[in-house]
Amino acid sequence: MSSKLATGDVSVQTNQAAIANFREKYRRTRRFSERIAEPLSAEDCAMQTMPDVSPTRWHLAHTTWFFETFLLKDSPSYQSYDSSFEYLFNSYYNAVGEQFPRNRRGQLSRPGLAETMEYRRHVDQHVLALLEGDEVRPDMLRVVELGLNHEQQHQELMLTDIKHVLFCNPLYPVYQESHSSPGEADVRCTPLTWETMPEGISEIGHAGDGFAFDNESPRHKTFLQAHSIASRCVTNGEYLEFMRDGGYQRPDLWLSLGWNQVQLQTWQHPLYWISRDDVWMEFTLAGLRELRLDEPLCHVSYFEADAYARWSGNRLPTELEWEALAAGQAVDGVFADKLLENDLPVHPQTENKRDERVSGMFGNLWEWTASQYSPYPGFAAAGGALGEYNGKFMCNQFVLRGGSCATSSDHIRPTYRNFFPPESRWQFSGIRLAN
Amino acid sequence: MSSKLATGDVSVQTNQAAIANFREKYRRTRRFSERIAEPLSAEDCAMQTMPDVSPTRWHLAHTTWFFETFLLKDSPSYQSYDSSFEYLFNSYYNAVGEQFPRNRRGQLSRPGLAETMEYRRHVDQHVLALLEGDEVRPDMLRVVELGLNHEQQHQELMLTDIKHVLFCNPLYPVYQESHSSPGEADVRCTPLTWETMPEGISEIGHAGDGFAFDNESPRHKTFLQAHSIASRCVTNGEYLEFMRDGGYQRPDLWLSLGWNQVQLQTWQHPLYWISRDDVWMEFTLAGLRELRLDEPLCHVSYFEADAYARWSGNRLPTELEWEALAAGQAVDGVFADKLLENDLPVHPQTENKRDERVSGMFGNLWEWTASQYSPYPGFAAAGGALGEYNGKFMCNQFVLRGGSCATSSDHIRPTYRNFFPPESRWQFSGIRLAN
Amino acid sequence: MSSKLATGDVSVQTNQAAIANFREKYRRTRRFSERIAEPLSAEDCAMQTMPDVSPTRWHLAHTTWFFETFLLKDSPSYQSYDSSFEYLFNSYYNAVGEQFPRNRRGQLSRPGLAETMEYRRHVDQHVLALLEGDEVRPDMLRVVELGLNHEQQHQELMLTDIKHVLFCNPLYPVYQESHSSPGEADVRCTPLTWETMPEGISEIGHAGDGFAFDNESPRHKTFLQAHSIASRCVTNGEYLEFMRDGGYQRPDLWLSLGWNQVQLQTWQHPLYWISRDDVWMEFTLAGLRELRLDEPLCHVSYFEADAYARWSGNRLPTELEWEALAAGQAVDGVFADKLLENDLPVHPQTENKRDERVSGMFGNLWEWTASQYSPYPGFAAAGGALGEYNGKFMCNQFVLRGGSCATSSDHIRPTYRNFFPPESRWQFSGIRLAN
Amino acid sequence: MSSKLATGDVSVQTNQAAIANFREKYRRTRRFSERIAEPLSAEDCAMQTMPDVSPTRWHLAHTTWFFETFLLKDSPSYQSYDSSFEYLFNSYYNAVGEQFPRNRRGQLSRPGLAETMEYRRHVDQHVLALLEGDEVRPDMLRVVELGLNHEQQHQELMLTDIKHVLFCNPLYPVYQESHSSPGEADVRCTPLTWETMPEGISEIGHAGDGFAFDNESPRHKTFLQAHSIASRCVTNGEYLEFMRDGGYQRPDLWLSLGWNQVQLQTWQHPLYWISRDDVWMEFTLAGLRELRLDEPLCHVSYFEADAYARWSGNRLPTELEWEALAAGQAVDGVFADKLLENDLPVHPQTENKRDERVSGMFGNLWEWTASQYSPYPGFAAAGGALGEYNGKFMCNQFVLRGGSCATSSDHIRPTYRNFFPPESRWQFSGIRLAN
Repeated sequence: MSSKLATGDVSVQTNQAAIANFREKYRRTRRFSERIAEPLSAEDCAMQTMPDVSPTRWHLAHTTWFFETFLLKDSPSYQSYDSSFEYLFNSYYNAVGEQFPRNRRGQLSRPGLAETMEYRRHVDQHVLALLEGDEVRPDMLRVVELGLNHEQQHQELMLTDIKHVLFCNPLYPVYQESHSSPGEADVRCTPLTWETMPEGISEIGHAGDGFAFDNESPRHKTFLQAHSIASRCVTNGEYLEFMRDGGYQRPDLWLSLGWNQVQLQTWQHPLYWISRDDVWMEFTLAGLRELRLDEPLCHVSYFEADAYARWSGNRLPTELEWEALAAGQAVDGVFADKLLENDLPVHPQTENKRDERVSGMFGNLWEWTASQYSPYPGFAAAGGALGEYNGKFMCNQFVLRGGSCATSSDHIRPTYRNFFPPESRWQFSGIRLAN
Repeated sequence: MSSKLATGDVSVQTNQAAIANFREKYRRTRRFSERIAEPLSAEDCAMQTMPDVSPTRWHLAHTTWFFETFLLKDSPSYQSYDSSFEYLFNSYYNAVGEQFPRNRRGQLSRPGLAETMEYRRHVDQHVLALLEGDEVRPDMLRVVELGLNHEQQHQELMLTDIKHVLFCNPLYPVYQESHSSPGEADVRCTPLTWETMPEGISEIGHAGDGFAFDNESPRHKTFLQAHSIASRCVTNGEYLEFMRDGGYQRPDLWLSLGWNQVQLQTWQHPLYWISRDDVWMEFTLAGLRELRLDEPLCHVSYFEADAYARWSGNRLPTELEWEALAAGQAVDGVFADKLLENDLPVHPQTENKRDERVSGMFGNLWEWTASQYSPYPGFAAAGGALGEYNGKFMCNQFVLRGGSCATSSDHIRPTYRNFFPPESRWQFSGIRLAN
Repeated sequence: MSSKLATGDVSVQTNQAAIANFREKYRRTRRFSERIAEPLSAEDCAMQTMPDVSPTRWHLAHTTWFFETFLLKDSPSYQSYDSSFEYLFNSYYNAVGEQFPRNRRGQLSRPGLAETMEYRRHVDQHVLALLEGDEVRPDMLRVVELGLNHEQQHQELMLTDIKHVLFCNPLYPVYQESHSSPGEADVRCTPLTWETMPEGISEIGHAGDGFAFDNESPRHKTFLQAHSIASRCVTNGEYLEFMRDGGYQRPDLWLSLGWNQVQLQTWQHPLYWISRDDVWMEFTLAGLRELRLDEPLCHVSYFEADAYARWSGNRLPTELEWEALAAGQAVDGVFADKLLENDLPVHPQTENKRDERVSGMFGNLWEWTASQYSPYPGFAAAGGALGEYNGKFMCNQFVLRGGSCATSSDHIRPTYRNFFPPESRWQFSGIRLAN
Repeated sequence: MSSKLATGDVSVQTNQAAIANFREKYRRTRRFSERIAEPLSAEDCAMQTMPDVSPTRWHLAHTTWFFETFLLKDSPSYQSYDSSFEYLFNSYYNAVGEQFPRNRRGQLSRPGLAETMEYRRHVDQHVLALLEGDEVRPDMLRVVELGLNHEQQHQELMLTDIKHVLFCNPLYPVYQESHSSPGEADVRCTPLTWETMPEGISEIGHAGDGFAFDNESPRHKTFLQAHSIASRCVTNGEYLEFMRDGGYQRPDLWLSLGWNQVQLQTWQHPLYWISRDDVWMEFTLAGLRELRLDEPLCHVSYFEADAYARWSGNRLPTELEWEALAAGQAVDGVFADKLLENDLPVHPQTENKRDERVSGMFGNLWEWTASQYSPYPGFAAAGGALGEYNGKFMCNQFVLRGGSCATSSDHIRPTYRNFFPPESRWQFSGIRLAN
C-alpha cells in the first residue's frame, strides 16, 4: 500500500518495515537536536541576538510543537502538554492561530530548558506510540516525514544561531573544543577551473519517489544558455584581494540596495572576521582563530557575493545552471552530522581533492545563486497550515543551493532550494562563480 | 553612416535629416515636461509627500541636469549654469559624485520654479546649438536619445507624483478639470476570456534597430510552459468582490511580506479609494469622484495583485508569458500625450472594444508580472555613469509591462521592462490574470 | 470700564480710545508678519526642514486661524473662509478638534501663498469690523490681545524657521542683503564681570496691569540663595576655547542625555557654524560670513550651555535669579522690529556698551536658565481651548529668558518665560553664566 | 578618627567596632541580593524585556563590579577576576571606560549564573579581607558605604525588573507563592483627609551624620506657599473612577507629552492591569489575581499621576512640600526586606491604620512629585567616576519620594530623592495628592 504526499511526488510505504524505519529515523533525528544543544548552558539556549536568530530552546520547543500540532492534536486521546504552547511556539502558521512576536522569543524564560526537554519527551512518547499502533495511515507518515525534514532545517538554524549568539559576546565563548590536526591549516586548495555547459533544453525540479519540499516541484523544462561554472568556491584569500582592491568602498561594484547595506551596517569584511593587530581572525564554533586563506569564504550576503562576482568579471550562476551541473553528482561532502559524530568543528573545509573536476557542490557551504526565489511553473502549495511552509516567502529572497557544513547529510539533494534575503550573512553561505 | 548604441541594438543615423529629427524630438519631449507642470503652482511643484515622490520642480531640473552632465559638460566651451546643481540634481549616479539626500528633495526652495525654467532654457539652447553644428557624433545622439527616454520616464513620474501630492492634501485639489462625456461612467467593460498559449521555445528581449534600454537585451531563447492569459485587466467591481470576501483580512491569501504590509500600513483598499457615507469614491487627477465599477482597477501593489490572483484561483503572468503575447500586437492604447492633447483625464479607461481578442496590453495601466526583476542571460550594463541606469536595481523589485495612461505613446514597446518594489502603489498599476 | 483677563492680571479698557489702540496694534502686528515674509518666494514659504520647523505660509495661516477660531467663529454673522482650514491650521488645540499632523505641514501646497494672503485679508476685515462696532466686549479684547501676542511669538518662529530652511539648502541663500558698516566686525565686547546678589526672599512672576501669559502668574515669594551672575553673555571666541579644550569629546562635561545627543547628532560645534579651509564661518540671515569672535554665541542647545558652564567652573542661573536681576532693568536691546525697520541683519550684536553694569538681558539672544519649566505655585491654566496654551508643555523643557534679536520689542518683559526642549538649537539661544 | 564623605556630610568612623559594623552590613546586604534571586531559574536571570530592564544576573554582576572597580582595583595585590568584566558590567561610568550597550544586556549568556555567583564570592572574599586588615582608611569605608547603598538600589531594580520579565510571559509565572491571609482582600482603606501646611521658610536637604547621596545636599532654605497634602495615596478604586470618566480618552487632562504616550503606547490602564471577562485582574509578584479596590494604586507614570490629579481638581505635591511633611515622621512602612523575611508578597498594602494622621509616606510605593529633578543650590557632584552617580541625570526626570515595598527599610530617609522619566511605569510608583 502506498500513497502520494502532497508536498512532492513521494511514495510513503505503510508496511511494518517502512514504519519501523520511520520510528528509527524519528528517534535519530530528534536525538540529534538534543546533541546540538548539549554543549550549551541554559542561558546559552535562551539568547536571541537579532530578530533572525531564535533561542536554541525555542527551536527545541517549536520542532516539538510541529509534531504536537500537525500529528497529535487531532487524536481524541491526546492530552496537550500545555495549551499555551500553541501560541508560544507557533512560528508563522496563521492558519493555526496567533503567534508570539518573533523578535521577543529571547524574552521568554519559561518554559525553561528542563521543562522544554520534558515537553520533548512527552511528545516523543506519544508520537512513537502512535507509530507503534495499528492505525498508522499514510497521511500520518507524510506529516512525520515533513516534521523530521522540518526539524533538520531547525538543526541547521540552531548551529548558525548559536554561532551568532556566542560571537555577540565579547568573551567569544567556544561551542566545540577544536580537534584540528596540526597540519590542517596548511592544506592548499585546488586551482580554480571552469566547467562549460552547452545551450539547450534542461529539466529541473523534483520528480519520482523520495521526499522533497513542495517548492522543488513540479519538474519542468527550461532553456539554458551556454555558460561555464567554477570548479570550486571562492576562498578567503581570493576575497581578501577584493577587499584590498577597495571592494567595500566602490559603489560601482554593488547593487543599489547592497551599497545601502554596506553604508548602513558599515560592512568592511565578512561576518565573523575580526582584525586584531593587523591580523585577520575568524570566529568559528571552535572559537576565535587566525583566518585560513585557502578555506572557502563563508558568511557573506548575496550583496557581497554579487559584488565580488562583478569585481572578478564574472557573475553568480542561476539556480537552473547550478542544478543542471549538480544533477549528475553524488551527494557527498562536509555535513553537520558527520562532523559532530567525529568531534570535528562545524566549519567549511578547504577544497583540495585533486581528482574531482568539480568539488564542494554539496555540503561545506550554501552557494548563493543569481535567482530570486520564485514558484516553479505549475507550483501548488500544500493545503492547509502546512501550505504556509514555502510559497508565502517567494518574494525578496534569493535561492541558495547545495547545503552546508551545518546541514545533515541525508537532508540535501540536487533539487533542494534554500532561500534567504539578500542581506543575510549568518548562514554558512559562500560564492561559486559562473560566466 | 551608422553606429551601435551600447544600451541596445540601435542604429543611430547622423545624416542631416536624422539630426533634424532628433532636434524636433528634443524640442517636443522637453516641451511636454513643461506642459505637465503647467496647471501647477510653484508650491505644488515643491512638494515631496513620501520618499518615493520627487517634487515636480526637481524632475524638471534633474532631466535637465542629465543633458548638462552627460552631453554638455565635456564640451570645453560650455559654461555650467550653476556648479552646485551637479550635486543638487544628481539622482543616484555615484560615478558622477555625491548626491543630495533623496528624502530631502522637498526641503529645497531654491532654485525656484522660475529659475528652474531658466536653467532648462539655458541647457536647451546649448543642446540645440550642439545639434545644429557640424560636429554631431553618433555617441552624442545616443546620449540625446537616452536623455529623451529618461525624460519621458520622469514625465510619467511627474504625473504619478503630483497625484500623490494632491491626494495628501485634505482639500483634494484638482489637477485637470474633468471633461468627461455624460455617458462615460456608464460604459460597460467586455467580458473576461482567456487566451491559451502552447508550450515551446520562445524568444524574448530586444533586437534590431530602434531604441531600447540595456535591461531589454540581449534577445534570447526561453522555454514557455503551456498557459492561458486573461483578455483584459481586472476591474474595480471585480476587486470589490475580493474585498467583500475578506481579502484584506485573510493572511492565507497573501505573501508573508505582503501580509506584513497590510498590517503595518493598515491597507483596506487600493490607494486613492475613499469611503464616504458608504459610497466608494476614487481620487483622480480630475478630482474626487464616485468609483466606476467597470473601469480597470489601478494603484495596487504587487502584494495586492498577487493576493487577488490567488483568491481568484489564478496567478499573475510571468514577464516572458506577457511578452510572448504582446509581441504580436500593435502598440496602441490610452497614453498620456494623447490624453493631455485632448484635455482628457490622465486615468485608465474602461476596456470595452468588443472586436479585440485581447485588450489593454499597451497603455491604460502597468501590469504586474510574477517575475522578479533580474538580468537577462548575457546582460551587460552600459559603461560609466550611464551604466547605473538599470542593472543596479535588479533586486527586490517586480517587473511591470505595457505602459500606462501616464506613459507617452512613443515611449513603450513589447520588450519594455518597468520595475518597482512589491509594496509600491502610486504608479498606475493593475492586474492581468494568467493560469 | 475694565475687566480682568483670565490669562493674567490684565486690565482691559473698553473705552473708545482703548479700542482704537487695539485696532492700531492689530494692524501693525498683522502687517509685521507679512513684512517678515516679504523677501521670500512662494517656495521658501512652503518648506519644513525638520518637524520643529513650520512653513512660513503655515505661520501666516495659523495666526489667522487663531483669530477666526477664537474671535470670529462664534459670531452668527461670520462666514468661515474655508471650513477645512479649521483642521489644516489647528496647531495643537485638542479642544478645537483634530489636527493635521505637524510633521507634514511641509507637504501641503494648498492653500498657496496668494490664497493664504487672501485668507488673512478676509479675517482682518472681519476682526477690524468687529472692533469698529458697538458690541466690543472685554472678553473679545482679551482674545485680540492674546492673539496678537501669539502672532508675535510666531513672527519669531518665522524668522528662526526660515533661517533653518535657507541653511539646509547647499546654495546658502540670503534672506536679507547685509548692510553692515565696515568696522562692525571689529567691535570688541566688554570684559566679563560678576554681579553679586545676597540671599533673601524675592518675589517673582507677573502682577498688575499689562498683558502677561498665564504661565507668568501668580506672582509669589521665593527664597534666593546668595549668588553672582555674569555681566554679559558668552562670546563665540570664549566658546571656541571650550571646543579647543575638547568640549565636544569629553563626556564628563555633559548631562547624560546631552552626551547622547552629541553622539547621535555628531555635534561638534554650534548650529550654523561651518568650517571651510580651517576658517570658521557662520550662516546668518544675511548669508554666510566669517565668524566674529566678540559676538555673543548663539544657536546652542541647553545641553551645550550646561556643558560650557560646567567646563568654565560655573553654572547657568535659575530663572528666579535671572528675574530678580532683570526686574530692575529697562526693557531695552536688540529686537527684530527695530532691526528690520532699519534694514539691519536679524542677528545678535556684540555687547560693547562700557557704561552698563549688566548688558544684554533683553533682546539679542534668549538665555538658557537652569530651570526646568514648571508651573508657579497656584498656577491655573486659562479655561477652554486657550488653556492649552502653556500649561500642557510643562514637562521636559527648560526656561529661557529675555527675548532675542528675533523678538519684537513690545513683546518681552522681565517675567516672560520662554521654553524649549534641552536639545533645541534653532532659536537664537545663548549663555549667561552664574555662580 | 572620623572623616567627611564627599557624597554627603557623613562621618565615617574607622575604629574597630565601626569597621566590624561595616563588615556585618556588607555581608547582610550582599546576601540579600542573592536572596532576591533565589526563586529564579538561570533563564529568568538572563532576560531583558525592555531597555530599562536589566537581567537579574547583570545586577548581581554589576554590583560586584562596583566594589571591584572602586575599591579593589587599585590594590596592587588584587588579581582581577576577569579583565573583560570591566567592560561588560560597567553601567554608565564613562570615566571608567567603554560600556557594553545597555539594550543588549539580555543578549549575554556568559558569564552564566553559576560563574556570576563565583565572581561575587571572589570579590566578597577580597572586600572582607580588606576590611579585616590594618589598613582600612576612611575613603575605603566611604566607598563600601556607597557600594552598599548602590547595591540596595539595584535590589529594588531586581524586583521591579523581574516583575516585568515574568509579566511579559503569557504563562504569567509566579515569583513568590502567595501567603496572604484569608481576609486580606477585604481590608478597607482609611478615608482621605488633608493635612494643611502654612506658608514660610523651610529647610530641606541632607545635613549631619549618616549616609546620603550627593543629590540630597546641600541643605538649604526654601520658601513654601501655604498648601494641603493628602493623608494617604490614591487607591485602585479611586483610579477606576478616573478611567470610567474617560480619563484615558480626554486630552484636556494630560500634559502634551503624556497624551502622546497614551496614544503611542495605547495606554488604557495602569501597567500590570489585565481585563479578563470584564473583571480587572492585576499581575503581582505573587501571580495574577483579582484587583483589590482599596489597595493603593501603583505602576503609573508621572503622566498618569499628573492627569489623575488634574481630573480630581488637585495637583501633585512638590518635593519640597513632601519633604517638609515627611521631616517630622518616623521612617516606618512596608519594605522589601521585611516582606521577604516573612514570606509576604512584595506588593503595596492597603493603608488602614486609623490612628495615623498621615500614612504611607515611607515604603509601600514611591510617590511622584511635581518637581523636575534638578540640582539643589550649591550642589557639587562627587569627584571622579563616582561623580557620575546622580548629577548627570538631572534632566527630563521627575522626583519620587518615600521608597516602596521593593525598597529596603534601612535605605530610605526623608531627604531621599529618587528620579525617573515621566513615562516610566515599572517601578512601584503611585499618587499622593496636594492642593
